[in-house]
Amino acid sequence: MKTFSVVTSGLLFALASTSTLAAQYDITNQDHWVLTNKDVGGAQPFKIEQTVLHGGKQDGVKVLTVDNGVMTITLIPTRGMDIYQVKSGDITLGWKSPVKQHVNPKFINLEDRNGLGWLEGFNEMMVRCGFEWTGHPGEDKGVMLTLHGRADYTPASQVLVTVDEKAPYAIHIRGELLEQLFKKVNFQTWTELSVIPGKKEFKIHDQLTNKGDYPHEYQVIYHSNFAQPLLEAGAKIEAPVKQISPFNDYAKQGLQDWQTYLGPTRGFDEMVYNIYPYANKKGNTLAVLHNRKATKGMAIHYNVHELPVLGLWKNTDTIGQGYVTGIEPGTSFSYNRSYQRDLDLVPTIGAHQKKDFHLTYQILDGKHAVTEQVNTVKSIQGQQKTELRKDPLVKGENL
Amino acid sequence: MKTFSVVTSGLLFALASTSTLAAQYDITNQDHWVLTNKDVGGAQPFKIEQTVLHGGKQDGVKVLTVDNGVMTITLIPTRGMDIYQVKSGDITLGWKSPVKQHVNPKFINLEDRNGLGWLEGFNEMMVRCGFEWTGHPGEDKGVMLTLHGRADYTPASQVLVTVDEKAPYAIHIRGELLEQLFKKVNFQTWTELSVIPGKKEFKIHDQLTNKGDYPHEYQVIYHSNFAQPLLEAGAKIEAPVKQISPFNDYAKQGLQDWQTYLGPTRGFDEMVYNIYPYANKKGNTLAVLHNRKATKGMAIHYNVHELPVLGLWKNTDTIGQGYVTGIEPGTSFSYNRSYQRDLDLVPTIGAHQKKDFHLTYQILDGKHAVTEQVNTVKSIQGQQKTELRKDPLVKGENL
Amino acid sequence: MKTFSVVTSGLLFALASTSTLAAQYDITNQDHWVLTNKDVGGAQPFKIEQTVLHGGKQDGVKVLTVDNGVMTITLIPTRGMDIYQVKSGDITLGWKSPVKQHVNPKFINLEDRNGLGWLEGFNEMMVRCGFEWTGHPGEDKGVMLTLHGRADYTPASQVLVTVDEKAPYAIHIRGELLEQLFKKVNFQTWTELSVIPGKKEFKIHDQLTNKGDYPHEYQVIYHSNFAQPLLEAGAKIEAPVKQISPFNDYAKQGLQDWQTYLGPTRGFDEMVYNIYPYANKKGNTLAVLHNRKATKGMAIHYNVHELPVLGLWKNTDTIGQGYVTGIEPGTSFSYNRSYQRDLDLVPTIGAHQKKDFHLTYQILDGKHAVTEQVNTVKSIQGQQKTELRKDPLVKGENL
Repeated sequence: MKTFSVVTSGLLFALASTSTLAAQYDITNQDHWVLTNKDVGGAQPFKIEQTVLHGGKQDGVKVLTVDNGVMTITLIPTRGMDIYQVKSGDITLGWKSPVKQHVNPKFINLEDRNGLGWLEGFNEMMVRCGFEWTGHPGEDKGVMLTLHGRADYTPASQVLVTVDEKAPYAIHIRGELLEQLFKKVNFQTWTELSVIPGKKEFKIHDQLTNKGDYPHEYQVIYHSNFAQPLLEAGAKIEAPVKQISPFNDYAKQGLQDWQTYLGPTRGFDEMVYNIYPYANKKGNTLAVLHNRKATKGMAIHYNVHELPVLGLWKNTDTIGQGYVTGIEPGTSFSYNRSYQRDLDLVPTIGAHQKKDFHLTYQILDGKHAVTEQVNTVKSIQGQQKTELRKDPLVKGENL
Repeated sequence: MKTFSVVTSGLLFALASTSTLAAQYDITNQDHWVLTNKDVGGAQPFKIEQTVLHGGKQDGVKVLTVDNGVMTITLIPTRGMDIYQVKSGDITLGWKSPVKQHVNPKFINLEDRNGLGWLEGFNEMMVRCGFEWTGHPGEDKGVMLTLHGRADYTPASQVLVTVDEKAPYAIHIRGELLEQLFKKVNFQTWTELSVIPGKKEFKIHDQLTNKGDYPHEYQVIYHSNFAQPLLEAGAKIEAPVKQISPFNDYAKQGLQDWQTYLGPTRGFDEMVYNIYPYANKKGNTLAVLHNRKATKGMAIHYNVHELPVLGLWKNTDTIGQGYVTGIEPGTSFSYNRSYQRDLDLVPTIGAHQKKDFHLTYQILDGKHAVTEQVNTVKSIQGQQKTELRKDPLVKGENL
Repeated sequence: MKTFSVVTSGLLFALASTSTLAAQYDITNQDHWVLTNKDVGGAQPFKIEQTVLHGGKQDGVKVLTVDNGVMTITLIPTRGMDIYQVKSGDITLGWKSPVKQHVNPKFINLEDRNGLGWLEGFNEMMVRCGFEWTGHPGEDKGVMLTLHGRADYTPASQVLVTVDEKAPYAIHIRGELLEQLFKKVNFQTWTELSVIPGKKEFKIHDQLTNKGDYPHEYQVIYHSNFAQPLLEAGAKIEAPVKQISPFNDYAKQGLQDWQTYLGPTRGFDEMVYNIYPYANKKGNTLAVLHNRKATKGMAIHYNVHELPVLGLWKNTDTIGQGYVTGIEPGTSFSYNRSYQRDLDLVPTIGAHQKKDFHLTYQILDGKHAVTEQVNTVKSIQGQQKTELRKDPLVKGENL
């Protein structure tokens, strides 16, 4: 057993876990930081790099890239540790938002435009919507809730990089998000992204702790967004579905075709669907998105005991407006919190309790990989029925 | 033909335009940067310098000064590329706002105090009010519009300095302003200030591009503000006027005397007038402000096809409160956008369309220079009548 | 008479006051700065140090510590020059807020959650609530006033450190806070904290100047917050009281026991009391807080001509929620400004007038020191009656 020495300016801790000893770096304050497999002695090549942006509303934003040899993941620690995009060969997970800058939260007022300030920086592949609340803006219990909560606009207060000493030499990127307001909320979330050199998947394990002495409502949506080359006319989503319903009246017309996508469509705007998924005995389930030919795709694995519902956001408007689909495991749908209590989708976390959320994102490169995951979907669905509910769960003119 | 080498830390591009080859520097990230004629080989002396401010709400604000040998222009890239002031001998364009700091947008919430957050940093000689909207705060189409839009609180995402290789060796300062919000707006504005060494004038050429795939309303006011030594008791504004009307009931009493100014006047607050100007056949027109003796002045040249109206803001309150007049060519007056649609002053920019705005600001030092521009005003006005409309265009108690 | 030379990077001024010559350092821009008695030649040891924080919402926050040999004071220049905590031996002035970060104002929108954004950074021992207004959020004169004004979220625009040349070699930390909004307010406050090496007390002298040409309302509360080891079950507050009344209906039940404190109490939330204090002939008065055994305490001395009222905030909820009491000399109580005009607690400051506020905070270590200050309280109270007013001064369901 040995501890690694660090050649860069990050701090070093020696972590003894059950199985591995790891080199850990606190890179919270690093404006330029690089770590490669050569620094820690591993054979499997990887490179982790943190830089800082300048100019416009990007000023001071930290960008962290993890290249594991076969896949490059770009994280934005200043924006809630969100994942900007993932690239692997000719597959990109992510989308082309009209918002081009990685916007620093310091420039944003989330209450702008009736609570839509969040949209001023929305361009990531994976955004945590939570943890105090999620969903559409609007008043709940006399307070204006802004779109999709505040986690995405919470700069990480600590960013730690760990590389396991033993095979498979997993890389862990951990970030601490604090949602604290005297008397109102005291949430700490340790986000974690783990990736193994040479493997085309990554895991998310977030742990929310209610550090307050009283119970508190919480919500989270893992707003995961995809476009070309996976999304195109004829692209398909596969998921084991117990019930699917339109988010609002406008989405009714697309209910029958929920599984397939249109190409970029002028004036389409967005159709949203609410899905109650089936899962296996352990609660594990997944959603798969693949291109028309089923040669490229991605799968999100999650657990319904942690994240009981799945939002499906079909935003197949023009390319320039942001042609994108959101596949969104969550505790909740995208309605304002005030509508979700009756749906039993506003859980409570007890004082000092912890809630864990695990997701695995896989890149599916090739017909075989896609088929394999589609088959997993089918095996979970089995002979169970899918209910297409014609009416939205929540009534409202402007939902 | 030769390209210049750069001795400073800015980046170099070789730009071949129709007439000149230019040295271009990307100074977006430069905290201290200097360029003089010696760096690029020109004989006519100039100095361009960028620095960064610290302390209070100025923290991180970039200040860019252009000294062209006879005139020093101070720009604030962090505040929408606005012009803080222009100095030439004993003439200053600008004013003494009670707001002393160059306020960084990161500290400001524009929705503060019913949409008046903009006033927390207002102290410039020329502020772009736009481009998504302009005018007084208030609700329009269910959304709170904050005072005078967001451009002034948009830090430039790129700042480029270009010096032409050939005579007259013009200096161009270009800044990119992005107003982007997913689904709502996707405006890019390239602002440009051009100045020729040795000449007491500068040109603004802004180009707004609607990068969205749908048409969008836009508005802009070039809020240009002047005080001593041009503004004083008996100072005068000259402009070819088709119709002038009071902005609100309070301004009615000053309508007859719209062309002349009071000295600092306790309790005066402000009177605002709406002007429809005359222009020449090409649409060119101007406004002139000069001191009582007509020995010092300034002229703004603009084109009514781009900027059809002129706002006149007479804020001749005490010196300490900010004794100032605004002479404001625009697409619109200063009413809330909701009032201006009926006045046909809320134009639309098509998808991917561009709108150009050209203004020339001249320093008039001496009776001859003033007279020359006043004569231009007279020649445009000619025998055409000026209508003094007694009632405001828009009715409202608190306008 | 000699002037000191400076070994650090701060600027030097030679200040000739009536009694002393001082070395003055402008440390506004210093990210790391240290001054000790050795730098200025004094024998009595002290150390002053400024650093800058990184990570999360602390990014860019300056922290200034003053160690005078027997006491360490931590100030936060970026947060209105507020005092985070004071430590001396086993006595700490301050509290353990659930808010752990020193939050940079650039991340905060004070209007959030109906005007409660202020709570997102509240963790200091002494916070200035003012100067434009103070008190609970809510509408006044058509404008939303946010909780406790803006001073705490105003980064100091200048920070000056002065060390007197002559005995007792007092250290002065001065910070300039600007509350400026065109047409609305033009307040400058020079805050000053003074401390003498070797002495367990410090003085605050703030000077508010209305730099505007018109009179303006102002308010301030010196929100001074204490917890363990002074606060505990049986801890006591002593003050000469003319009248005390409950802030709201909930506080009525604790009126009789206003002088003593509970230990951490689940579900207690907060009880607030409004005190009109007695003072001596010069207007001087004080409040003392001490532990159950009266062996540890602190005293705040202030003057009722400057600060006529005293707020008492008993927030003896659980430790984790922030077990704390606020002892708050002020111009005003904590009601929204709209309620305080009728109470004659919204004073006006004339154009260019100055208002001074003097407070002295003493650490009382030992029974003797506590008794001495309690006796001062008793001597001011004398035979004068204390009225326990049963009903709140202001009626309202949600106060």
